[in-house]
Amino acid sequence: MEAFTFVLFGATGDLAKRKIYPALYNLFIDHKLPQSFSVIGLGRRELTNEAFQANIEHSLHEFSRREANDPNSIQNFLRAFSYCVLDVGHKEDYYKLLKLIETKEEELQSEPNRMFYLSVGPEFFETITANIHESGLGSANGWKRLVIEKPFGHDLQSARDLNTNLKQVFTEDEIFRIDHYLGKPMVQKLVDLQLNNPVLKAVLDNRHIANVQITANEIVGVEERAGYYDHVGAVRDMFQNHMLQVLMMLTINFPNNSTTENVRFKKKLVMESLELLHKEDVRTNVVRGQYEAGMIQGKPVVGYTSEPNIAATSQNDTFIAAKLQIDDYFWRGVPFYIRTGKRMKDKSTRIVIEFKESLKQSGTKDDSTTPNLLVFEISPNEGIVLQLNTRDPLQRGQFKPMQIDFQEDLDNVPEAYENLILDALHGDSTFFAHWDEVELSWQWVQPILEAYEENLVPLRLYAAGTNGPAESDLLLEQDGFQWWFDEKYELENQENESIQQDQFVLNTNN
Amino acid sequence: MEAFTFVLFGATGDLAKRKIYPALYNLFIDHKLPQSFSVIGLGRRELTNEAFQANIEHSLHEFSRREANDPNSIQNFLRAFSYCVLDVGHKEDYYKLLKLIETKEEELQSEPNRMFYLSVGPEFFETITANIHESGLGSANGWKRLVIEKPFGHDLQSARDLNTNLKQVFTEDEIFRIDHYLGKPMVQKLVDLQLNNPVLKAVLDNRHIANVQITANEIVGVEERAGYYDHVGAVRDMFQNHMLQVLMMLTINFPNNSTTENVRFKKKLVMESLELLHKEDVRTNVVRGQYEAGMIQGKPVVGYTSEPNIAATSQNDTFIAAKLQIDDYFWRGVPFYIRTGKRMKDKSTRIVIEFKESLKQSGTKDDSTTPNLLVFEISPNEGIVLQLNTRDPLQRGQFKPMQIDFQEDLDNVPEAYENLILDALHGDSTFFAHWDEVELSWQWVQPILEAYEENLVPLRLYAAGTNGPAESDLLLEQDGFQWWFDEKYELENQENESIQQDQFVLNTNN
Repeated sequence: MEAFTFVLFGATGDLAKRKIYPALYNLFIDHKLPQSFSVIGLGRRELTNEAFQANIEHSLHEFSRREANDPNSIQNFLRAFSYCVLDVGHKEDYYKLLKLIETKEEELQSEPNRMFYLSVGPEFFETITANIHESGLGSANGWKRLVIEKPFGHDLQSARDLNTNLKQVFTEDEIFRIDHYLGKPMVQKLVDLQLNNPVLKAVLDNRHIANVQITANEIVGVEERAGYYDHVGAVRDMFQNHMLQVLMMLTINFPNNSTTENVRFKKKLVMESLELLHKEDVRTNVVRGQYEAGMIQGKPVVGYTSEPNIAATSQNDTFIAAKLQIDDYFWRGVPFYIRTGKRMKDKSTRIVIEFKESLKQSGTKDDSTTPNLLVFEISPNEGIVLQLNTRDPLQRGQFKPMQIDFQEDLDNVPEAYENLILDALHGDSTFFAHWDEVELSWQWVQPILEAYEENLVPLRLYAAGTNGPAESDLLLEQDGFQWWFDEKYELENQENESIQQDQFVLNTNN
Repeated sequence: MEAFTFVLFGATGDLAKRKIYPALYNLFIDHKLPQSFSVIGLGRRELTNEAFQANIEHSLHEFSRREANDPNSIQNFLRAFSYCVLDVGHKEDYYKLLKLIETKEEELQSEPNRMFYLSVGPEFFETITANIHESGLGSANGWKRLVIEKPFGHDLQSARDLNTNLKQVFTEDEIFRIDHYLGKPMVQKLVDLQLNNPVLKAVLDNRHIANVQITANEIVGVEERAGYYDHVGAVRDMFQNHMLQVLMMLTINFPNNSTTENVRFKKKLVMESLELLHKEDVRTNVVRGQYEAGMIQGKPVVGYTSEPNIAATSQNDTFIAAKLQIDDYFWRGVPFYIRTGKRMKDKSTRIVIEFKESLKQSGTKDDSTTPNLLVFEISPNEGIVLQLNTRDPLQRGQFKPMQIDFQEDLDNVPEAYENLILDALHGDSTFFAHWDEVELSWQWVQPILEAYEENLVPLRLYAAGTNGPAESDLLLEQDGFQWWFDEKYELENQENESIQQDQFVLNTNN
C-alpha cells in the first residue's frame, strides 16, 4: 500500500475513539498499514499533539479488540498522529490544514494520497467537501478519497441533493459510504459463501426456499440520541440502509465472481427487482411500532414517549417489520420478512432461510418435523447454523431438530471498521454503499415515509422486552409462517443435544 | 410390548457379557421392557442361577453404558434370569429347556412368545434350529423369533445352504440377522435424514455429488481371533456385511417412507443396481492388503504374518479398498470408494460425500477452495459435518475450509445392541439384514473371493499405523480424487478456527 494521509474530521468524537483509532491500531500491529502514514485529527477544540495522542492511547486501552499492552508499538503508532484545530466553516483553517498535510507529506516523502474521513454530523458534509475543494486540499497529484457515514439524506430528495453536492468535489469512485453492516464479517462472507459452495448454490433459490427472515433487534432504547432518533425512526435509522444492504448482499445470488463491479451491479439489480410498494399498500405490508414501558432482562424500563427529550405525543417508529418480494428468476415467490427494533427481547442480528417442506404436500410428512433452516448469525456472534430433522434416539419415532453449526472465534476476526478502513485505503469499494444503492433504497422506502407522515399506517405499541407488536407476527402468520428463534425457551427446554444448541441460545442473548 | 422369554444360547460368552446383558439392562431401566419377561441363559458349563446372576451383575458393572449403581433395580432385573445347562447337540436338553420355559411362562402367566438368540458360532446354527423345531420349542401359540449374528455363510453357496436350513424352522419374518452396524445410531439416521430434510434431498444425487467414500478403519490387529480371521479376511469379516449395509442405507435415496418394507425393498434395489464385478476386473477395482510391522501410536507392532497362530505364509487380507458403481437414476456416474482395514492409523468409521465443484469447469474457481464435503461420522463418535469454503478473515483473498458440525452426546444415546434387541422384541426388522440383501451381497463379493483364491489380485503390504497400501490412494487418484481426512495433521496445523474443528480431529483419534 502507498503512503497516505488520513484526515479525520471529528477527531475528538465518539466514533473516532470507539472505532476508528482502535481499527487503525489493529491494522497497524497486523502490518497492514504502509511504513509511512500520517493521521491528522481535526476538531474545534484546542489540543496539543501530546494531549491528542494521550486521548488516542486511552481509547486503545478501552476499545481495542486486542490488548494494547506493548508500549513500543503504541509509541510507534502514535507517532503518526498530529492534531490541528479546525472550524469546518472557516475557510482559512483549510489552508492551514493544507500546509500541515504538505509538511507531513514532505517529511514522509510520500505522494499526496489523502483520505478525508468525515466523522461528523451530516449537516457538515457539504460545507466540508466544498472547502476541501476550494482550498485545493483535493487537487494534488495523489489520490483523494472521501469517507462518510450515514445518514445519507433524510429522504429521497435530500439524499439526491446531498449526492449532487458531493459529486461536485468527489467522483463516485472516490466516495466511500460506510454502512458498517457491510463491514461485519458474516455479511462480507455472504457473497463468497454462495459463490464458492456448490452445496449452498444448489438450494438458495425459490425452488427450495419458503421464506427469508432478516432480523436486527436491539435491547437498548433510544439512549442519548433522542434528538436525532425522534426525527428519523427505525425506518431511516436501520431499515433504509443496514437492512436493505443485508438483503442485497444475501440475494445477489449466483454472481459470476466477486469483483467490486459485479457485486455492485448485482446489488443494483436486486434493488431494481424489489417489488415497489405503493403508499396505499404500506399498511398491509409494513408494521410500524413503538415501545411502551416493559421489562428488559428483569428490570423495568420506560416507554419511548417517557424517554428524556422525547415528546409525550411522539408518533416516531422504534420498530419496523416489512414484507418484501424480489421479482427475479431466483427469488420470485419467496417472501422476505425484515424487521428491526429497539427495546426488543434479545440482541440479535441474523438471517434465517426457511426451506420448503417438500413432503408436506404429499401428505407423508411426519408432524414432528420442522422446516430445514439455514441461519447466518451476524451479531453479536458470528456463525452458520443448519437445522435438520433427525429421529430422536430417546423417543421412538419422534423427530427433533438438530443443529449443525459453526461459530467464529470473534477475538481473531477483524472488526467491521478494520475491514472497511483497510478497504478504503486500498481503494476497494466492494463493501461500501454505491450511490445507486442508496438512491434505490430511498426510493423504495419513500412510500413508507409518506404513509407514516400521512398516518396511513397505525402505530402499534409493544411492551419493551418483547418481540415487537403482535402485528409483526401476523405479517408472517397470514402467509403460514412464523419468526424463528423468537421463543428461546423452546430450545432451552429441550434436552440439550449438544453444546452447539446451547451456544446458539447464548449468542442471541449476548 | 407383550411378555416374552429370551432364550440365550451362549450365555457365558463374550458377546453376552459385553453387549447383550448391558443392552437388556439399559432397556430395563428405561422401562422399555414389559412388566414380565424371562431370560434363560444356556451354556455347556454347570452354573447355579445365583452364580449366573452374579456373572451378569459383574458384566453390568463393567460394560453398561450407564452406571449400574442402584441395587434395587439390579435385583429386579436379575430376578428375570435363570440358567440351564444345554449341550447344543443333546436333544434331551431341549426338552428340559422346553419344560423350564413353560414353567416360567406359567409363573408369569405369559403367552409363549419366545426369542431364540444364538450368540454362538455359526457352525451351531443349523443344529440348534433343527433341535428347536424337533423339541417343539418353537411350536407354541405365541410368536417365535430367531436372532443370529454374522457370519451368515462363508461364501454365496454356504450362505444359501445355511438359509435353506434356517428356513425349514423359521420364516423370513421370524429371522432377525444382526449386523450391528445397522444398530449404530448414525446409520439408523441415514434414511430419516434424507427423507425428512429437503436441503439434503436437494443435493444427494449424481448432479451434485462427485464421489462417496465409506471408511471403517481399526487400529487393532487380528487380536485373539487368528483362527477365525485368517480364514475370512477383511472382505468377509467387514466388507460383505457391514460395509455393503452402510452403502445400502446411504444410497436408498428418496424412499417414499421409512417403513420396514420400503427400506428393505429399496436396499434390495441398490444391491441389484450395483454394477457387477467380473473376476477379471477385480484387480483394477479392488485393493487387497495385509499389514506389515509398523508403529501404532508410537509403539512398534508386529506384522500380520508374525501374529500368534497366523502362518508366516498367510496371504489373508487385513485391508480392502474397492470402487463400486450404482447404476440407477440417482447414483449413475458417482464412484463409491469403500475401504476397511486393521492396524490403520486411526480408528474411524465414516461416510464422506464429496460434492462437485461446479466452478472448476468454468475456470473461475479460486485455487484455494476445496470441495464441499458432507461427513457422517458413525464411530467412535457420532456427528455430521458440512465443510464449506469461506474467505479467511486473516488472509486477504485466501479461502479456507469451514466446518459446520453437530456432535451427538453419546452418553445419552442407546448403544447398537439396545436398539437392535428392542427392535427384535417389537418384531421390527427394519434394521436387520434381510436374506435378499445377504444373498445379493455374497453374490457381489463372490468374484472377489474367487479372484483372491486364484491369486489374480496381488497382495499389497502396508506398514501398520498407516492408511493402507499406496494402491488404495491410487484407486482414487486415477479418478482425480483423494481419501479425505487421512492426513489429520493438515487440519491440526491450521489455525484453529473453532472448537468444532478440534472436535473433528479428536473424534477420529479416539
